[in-house]
Amino acid sequence: MEQRISLVTLGVADLARAKAFYAAIGWRGQEVEETVFFQAGGMVLVLWGRDKLAADCGLADDGPRGGFEGIALAHNVRSDAEVDAIVEAARAAGATVTRAPAETFYGGYAGVFLDPDGHAWEIAHNPGFVLEEDGSLRLPDFGAP
Amino acid sequence: MEQRISLVTLGVADLARAKAFYAAIGWRGQEVEETVFFQAGGMVLVLWGRDKLAADCGLADDGPRGGFEGIALAHNVRSDAEVDAIVEAARAAGATVTRAPAETFYGGYAGVFLDPDGHAWEIAHNPGFVLEEDGSLRLPDFGAP
Repeated sequence: MEQRISLVTLGVADLARAKAFYAAIGWRGQEVEETVFFQAGGMVLVLWGRDKLAADCGLADDGPRGGFEGIALAHNVRSDAEVDAIVEAARAAGATVTRAPAETFYGGYAGVFLDPDGHAWEIAHNPGFVLEEDGSLRLPDFGAP
Repeated sequence: MEQRISLVTLGVADLARAKAFYAAIGWRGQEVEETVFFQAGGMVLVLWGRDKLAADCGLADDGPRGGFEGIALAHNVRSDAEVDAIVEAARAAGATVTRAPAETFYGGYAGVFLDPDGHAWEIAHNPGFVLEEDGSLRLPDFGAP
């Protein structure tokens, strides 16, 4: 298996609400057959009905639990001010801010919000990771195994 | 907000078990302070203690529920045979296959497994999406809004 993720699909209860939320924070996608696809660098973010996604995965679903899903997405930016601006835009668009932007234990600055379906996004400025001009994130060599 | 995901962090109950699983299916990462980082194209996949990730997100966590998490990752490949090989390697490494590889409604071929912490991965051959030589996935122009 090559070391890459091709798509991240977020299960949503209301596709129009989810699409409007992501549009409000700057994402432009294509809607096809009740699915919204966003090109995101070399990968794709997808919004799809939560029931359809669960069934497609062969999994039972009791619906969102309202707490931690076990997974978090992160979006790294180039300054503390960008963190503040994005978290504020998300809040204005209906996100729940679960961690207000603040300094982090790794010497960065970050905040966390949940989108309308409870999916967690950390918005982070981490000077220890290289954010290339095209938005790619490159890990440093930690000198670790 | 630029249209990209920088990191996907998977909460795990046992870091050594999770690292061994991903190693068995071909991923090589760096472990630093009880965190494993994998460079994955222009983004990063991270394994981190589920309790730490939940706390870092400002969220309560009752632990994994054993069903659908609300989100799914996908890894696209270039042939049906690769789908079979990866799903079989994951099964051999301890994954639970929740959808055996088969033809899909979109004219592709895919299977789904859960990693040892219940995170869903679809392994897919989708001739409708361009998989570039470097592994980047490019959406077609659906001619949709």
